[in-house]
Amino acid sequence: MNWLLADEIIRNALVEDIGHGDISTELTPGNDRAVTGRFKAKQDGVLCGGLVAARCFTTLDPDCAVALEADDGGDLKSGTVFGTVTGPARSVLTAERVALNFLQRMSGIATQARRLAKRCQPAGIRVVETRKTTPGLRMLEKYAVLTGGGYNHRMDLDHAVMLKDNHFALAGGDPADVVAAVKSRAGHTMKVVAEAGDPSMVEPIVSAGADVVLLDNFTPAQVSQAVREIGGRALIELSGGINDENLEGYLIKGVDVISIGALTHSFSALDISLDI
Amino acid sequence: MNWLLADEIIRNALVEDIGHGDISTELTPGNDRAVTGRFKAKQDGVLCGGLVAARCFTTLDPDCAVALEADDGGDLKSGTVFGTVTGPARSVLTAERVALNFLQRMSGIATQARRLAKRCQPAGIRVVETRKTTPGLRMLEKYAVLTGGGYNHRMDLDHAVMLKDNHFALAGGDPADVVAAVKSRAGHTMKVVAEAGDPSMVEPIVSAGADVVLLDNFTPAQVSQAVREIGGRALIELSGGINDENLEGYLIKGVDVISIGALTHSFSALDISLDI
Amino acid sequence: MNWLLADEIIRNALVEDIGHGDISTELTPGNDRAVTGRFKAKQDGVLCGGLVAARCFTTLDPDCAVALEADDGGDLKSGTVFGTVTGPARSVLTAERVALNFLQRMSGIATQARRLAKRCQPAGIRVVETRKTTPGLRMLEKYAVLTGGGYNHRMDLDHAVMLKDNHFALAGGDPADVVAAVKSRAGHTMKVVAEAGDPSMVEPIVSAGADVVLLDNFTPAQVSQAVREIGGRALIELSGGINDENLEGYLIKGVDVISIGALTHSFSALDISLDI
Amino acid sequence: MNWLLADEIIRNALVEDIGHGDISTELTPGNDRAVTGRFKAKQDGVLCGGLVAARCFTTLDPDCAVALEADDGGDLKSGTVFGTVTGPARSVLTAERVALNFLQRMSGIATQARRLAKRCQPAGIRVVETRKTTPGLRMLEKYAVLTGGGYNHRMDLDHAVMLKDNHFALAGGDPADVVAAVKSRAGHTMKVVAEAGDPSMVEPIVSAGADVVLLDNFTPAQVSQAVREIGGRALIELSGGINDENLEGYLIKGVDVISIGALTHSFSALDISLDI
Amino acid sequence: MNWLLADEIIRNALVEDIGHGDISTELTPGNDRAVTGRFKAKQDGVLCGGLVAARCFTTLDPDCAVALEADDGGDLKSGTVFGTVTGPARSVLTAERVALNFLQRMSGIATQARRLAKRCQPAGIRVVETRKTTPGLRMLEKYAVLTGGGYNHRMDLDHAVMLKDNHFALAGGDPADVVAAVKSRAGHTMKVVAEAGDPSMVEPIVSAGADVVLLDNFTPAQVSQAVREIGGRALIELSGGINDENLEGYLIKGVDVISIGALTHSFSALDISLDI
Amino acid sequence: MNWLLADEIIRNALVEDIGHGDISTELTPGNDRAVTGRFKAKQDGVLCGGLVAARCFTTLDPDCAVALEADDGGDLKSGTVFGTVTGPARSVLTAERVALNFLQRMSGIATQARRLAKRCQPAGIRVVETRKTTPGLRMLEKYAVLTGGGYNHRMDLDHAVMLKDNHFALAGGDPADVVAAVKSRAGHTMKVVAEAGDPSMVEPIVSAGADVVLLDNFTPAQVSQAVREIGGRALIELSGGINDENLEGYLIKGVDVISIGALTHSFSALDISLDI
Repeated sequence: MNWLLADEIIRNALVEDIGHGDISTELTPGNDRAVTGRFKAKQDGVLCGGLVAARCFTTLDPDCAVALEADDGGDLKSGTVFGTVTGPARSVLTAERVALNFLQRMSGIATQARRLAKRCQPAGIRVVETRKTTPGLRMLEKYAVLTGGGYNHRMDLDHAVMLKDNHFALAGGDPADVVAAVKSRAGHTMKVVAEAGDPSMVEPIVSAGADVVLLDNFTPAQVSQAVREIGGRALIELSGGINDENLEGYLIKGVDVISIGALTHSFSALDISLDI
Repeated sequence: MNWLLADEIIRNALVEDIGHGDISTELTPGNDRAVTGRFKAKQDGVLCGGLVAARCFTTLDPDCAVALEADDGGDLKSGTVFGTVTGPARSVLTAERVALNFLQRMSGIATQARRLAKRCQPAGIRVVETRKTTPGLRMLEKYAVLTGGGYNHRMDLDHAVMLKDNHFALAGGDPADVVAAVKSRAGHTMKVVAEAGDPSMVEPIVSAGADVVLLDNFTPAQVSQAVREIGGRALIELSGGINDENLEGYLIKGVDVISIGALTHSFSALDISLDI
Repeated sequence: MNWLLADEIIRNALVEDIGHGDISTELTPGNDRAVTGRFKAKQDGVLCGGLVAARCFTTLDPDCAVALEADDGGDLKSGTVFGTVTGPARSVLTAERVALNFLQRMSGIATQARRLAKRCQPAGIRVVETRKTTPGLRMLEKYAVLTGGGYNHRMDLDHAVMLKDNHFALAGGDPADVVAAVKSRAGHTMKVVAEAGDPSMVEPIVSAGADVVLLDNFTPAQVSQAVREIGGRALIELSGGINDENLEGYLIKGVDVISIGALTHSFSALDISLDI
Repeated sequence: MNWLLADEIIRNALVEDIGHGDISTELTPGNDRAVTGRFKAKQDGVLCGGLVAARCFTTLDPDCAVALEADDGGDLKSGTVFGTVTGPARSVLTAERVALNFLQRMSGIATQARRLAKRCQPAGIRVVETRKTTPGLRMLEKYAVLTGGGYNHRMDLDHAVMLKDNHFALAGGDPADVVAAVKSRAGHTMKVVAEAGDPSMVEPIVSAGADVVLLDNFTPAQVSQAVREIGGRALIELSGGINDENLEGYLIKGVDVISIGALTHSFSALDISLDI
Repeated sequence: MNWLLADEIIRNALVEDIGHGDISTELTPGNDRAVTGRFKAKQDGVLCGGLVAARCFTTLDPDCAVALEADDGGDLKSGTVFGTVTGPARSVLTAERVALNFLQRMSGIATQARRLAKRCQPAGIRVVETRKTTPGLRMLEKYAVLTGGGYNHRMDLDHAVMLKDNHFALAGGDPADVVAAVKSRAGHTMKVVAEAGDPSMVEPIVSAGADVVLLDNFTPAQVSQAVREIGGRALIELSGGINDENLEGYLIKGVDVISIGALTHSFSALDISLDI
Repeated sequence: MNWLLADEIIRNALVEDIGHGDISTELTPGNDRAVTGRFKAKQDGVLCGGLVAARCFTTLDPDCAVALEADDGGDLKSGTVFGTVTGPARSVLTAERVALNFLQRMSGIATQARRLAKRCQPAGIRVVETRKTTPGLRMLEKYAVLTGGGYNHRMDLDHAVMLKDNHFALAGGDPADVVAAVKSRAGHTMKVVAEAGDPSMVEPIVSAGADVVLLDNFTPAQVSQAVREIGGRALIELSGGINDENLEGYLIKGVDVISIGALTHSFSALDISLDI
């Protein structure tokens, strides 16, 4: 987590919500009183974004103080109070919605990640998110996946080479040639991930030296076959439409990673309130 | 929609995803060829974000051209191709993910909004979102709600006065006094929305001149009673835990608006692909 | 007031004035000494911008401290010292001009607003500014109008619907139809203001449900006639060339609001100095 | 003029005024029609900001086109149409107010500058503004002074050394020593301006090598005496409370420059309209 | 290369150099004439930054056109003209210095990179830069290294894990334990680089699974010994004070990469002029 | 130095280097321990950038504290420890590289400036840098030249008028006419520098009133002749290919300033480490 970036995201979110001022609170008599708000879980789940929420209040007003009794990654039981914010009513009321917007979303993602991670763990498989993250919030969403017990795929397009069907089609030749050509120019600290669109592509890709082979939309049977074929020469990642329903079939020994887009593109916010 | 703001959101999303460069594409031979990608719906739903997706490509590279055969708000059938992007492979591949991230999310929201709006329409009730939007994307998400057939609640904290239980508690007195005090200072173009936390608050709030009375967590019976009591003196908005399951009970004649947080905080992205 | 935005305006103003450094002060021996500057009114008027001026110093240097003996909205008598700033000479001298530029302008606007508000008050009429504000400083100028005793018109183009002659001309039909069409799509928290360019437009606009009818360039006699005609069905705002000279004639009972562009487009800065 | 900076000021002003969208125009039927607006002077004055106003429209929408029949600095007669803007009604209406806000203010400043410049010219004296400019708009306001026939003082604190009473007081010694010390360290392309708070300071300052001596709050008689004393050894600038009323007395041969804060801190916008 | 980022760097550099305007050019009669400038090498070297320089002109003024006869990476002979820029004199003169500042620096780095790369190539060793890049220009400088024939180390702190002496000291235990612990949590697309501060650390680090072992400040003899010891189980990178003088001794078969900080922290700009 | 600008440069540099997080440090056990790092010179030179380096740590984490035992401009001996930073290991390690990148570069420039300044001082000549600075870092690099004992040329294109061969060519006439024309419009606080491309241009330029005459690529003999000819009527600056080798010949009495581009375009970073 780079807090310099997080602070900028937080500030922009506050500006987006406050506009030129929270007129309701400004016009309410007594808005200078000190109040205390209690963060309360209204569903079971995994806490994530506690510090982000805290910074929403303190960025708006350094006179706010937030005390958290649970760390990110901790289990929340419905009904539990897990922290408080104290400060001038004017500031607590104004920042409340933005703080909760972050907290509910990040906790929602972490909760989903934990559920999936727990299912995969016995097979020694990692669950990772994809690049299907919310524009502008990738760092926070990846952090939430990690907090929930998942792992992170590459952060963005410059973090690892990832060759897909379109790249192979462009180059117009043998995928193995493309993998080899790219490896000769990519940095020595960079891994090369290559996608096998069908079983016949697995061997050439692995032989050409890919560090990770991504089996895209393979059936469980095809996966098992590929695991044997690869024999440890590359990490194995599964992707493509794997979800809660069909996950079980893909928990195949030898698979290293399963990437699931829904982790960040289709989740429910965790219900958390701030009671003042 | 303010496209100056939208363009900034788009640019930042591209920078977030591209980092210092899409090394996979840069290192792939043939990346200068012109290619055409086709936007294809893989689920039924409502299209939203077509122009936003288009600008992802043209912002990255003015040599890209996007042609859309459907407008935002149009129905998408699974399998339908509704537009194309043509340009240098290097640019089309690099912008693809960000364009889809916007398109899938916005279409997901519009699809959910349409479903709910259709259910409420016969009762003459509007469905609106809340301020539980994704930090940084509120303008786009509200646009998606509108596109789907919903309506918009206030944009941010400076667009309308909205007095809730916390404001009344702060002022420490009669809610009616607070409403009256606020009205005397709020701008003449601004409406005052006041939340009734229980049935006893309805009459004082309405008498004090609130333009909209928000019935929070009322039972259907309480709502019916309040509708009679208010008798057209204020607009009536329902909020608090109304969802797909319990919506039917709240479709009460006389209610003007139902606000549903899940419209923007818990949705599934619509599955859309770009086939190149 | 959104201080996150105000702080950005203040920072940018300091950067604009300081450039790469205040070389005069940097090269002056003794610039590290602590000094105290006293804010002194050199004209009678209304103080506005005290906290903004204070933040100019503390933004540049947290070692500066500002103590204000008067609040925004307080009356200043020529010759009165109403506050002090203490800090390293280097910082106090460097931030002085920017602090005064804000303070003098905002106080100038508040002073003019108070003068006009006092004249309108006996008739129960509000004075409001328009969108003819200084680019980049709207929030501060509207705050100054409010501080002086005026009220605020809509903040920007997304805060309320306002239909003028050009909108009616575009739609090419009956103004009443346009008002009705717009109302059916605008958010339920939004008011619709419609401009009557001549007396014949008043009735249709009001009947169509406009919340505010704006009588543009009406004569006092036309205004009186319109007030009777409207009979409380809509708020009444006057605009168009109303100024100090002709204001008296427009103080007509039943009018709610008079908007005056000169409040923010043609004012004199209030003379305030910082004596060190 | 640095147009990269001007374009940023223009964009920010548009965003400030448009917020999340010009809902009135968006909801008006027919907003896609092409319209033409004509810029018309409603007062006599000096045109300034024509290109800035033009860029307001084209920044918002490249499909707008602006044709100006008069250049900045040209005389405007009340009633004259001096340019047109053509484009989609939606864009022309949305950008109109911001474009006029710039145009009216810049023309107001240029008009005032021309009036004062004409009075000073026969005496061979330049009129310049001060640093009492509107925060955020200094570049545009200085350009307006120049356009009107005035000249520019230093742009900001890093453009020239300017030693005032406070600097001398800080250094605690002979002003001449301070001037000399500063000259020994300031860049060779930089001038040193030094303020004489009373007649006794003139000679030491000039002897110490100041390039410009600023006579602050001198009486005309004191100015005349100083002119003789300086004898061409330094440029002579007058400042401090010189205005329309007392200007005549200061038009003394040998004076080079008169700086007038009111040029930018207290002006009236020139009345210009856009008729569509 | 992410051109969205590059364009921002270019814009900021122009603003830095132009300030509020290029007054010399603005005041020069004839500044609207079209002129042509020719880029000429005044030293032998490697061209780099041609497109960056081109965008300096076109960013300032779209009426400028740049034609380059050589690509980045091409050899420049002293005296060669390798491109032209045509446009309004005002724009060509104003952007000239910034364009050359980029071009000269980037070409200087590429030239140095090529010299070193050529020396290392016969031994099958890559030359890479470090994170000792100029703040704000890392992307451009890494591109220049690549252009010259070098390779790139990780882009920033989130691109690969790199464990140095300080990390091992912090963890307070066996480096191998730290490597193993980190690998269990780092993303599967990420490599782990670990620094061996002395020969005894090589084996544990490699056994623990580091992808790259960095031999820091090893003597050539120690390097040879380590190469044998590692036996292909990890990539081998040398760092620490390797420079032109002592490079020869480190060209040891089996070494994969040599990182040289001076590539970006101590270089000479290549002399290139723009003749108009 | 404008620290508001410096802080922005520092923040951007940290973001550039940290990306989405320093994963190596984040994953290292014990990263919350307090550590102390010592800044140590590994070469002789001039310290510059101490406060900039300090702010790198405190910007990232206010819990870091930096104590410097030497001021900018102080002599560093190889091996000397001149300051410490104390703070959480996580923050000290993460900010280390950026802090050193500034410190090493700025000290490198100051060191070179001091060497050249010392050579020129006996002849009463100032050494100044040019506009050949690193894009984005001009303020810091000019500060480093000043710190080393050099002086500063104009900051950017709006700080002084500087007419070169291209300007004269554009105007198409007598350089003296151009100088005179420009002086009649340039601000009274601005100097006019004019470049003499050959000896015949000196007299006309000086007669026309240039404040500084820049002798470009003159031989020492030509310089001596020009000094006599000018006779104190203008400051004399030498430029064009003057460097360590040929400097001696240009140390001619009567010359005021020698500008040397290499001061900022071709320098070696000073070797400074942070030992933890």
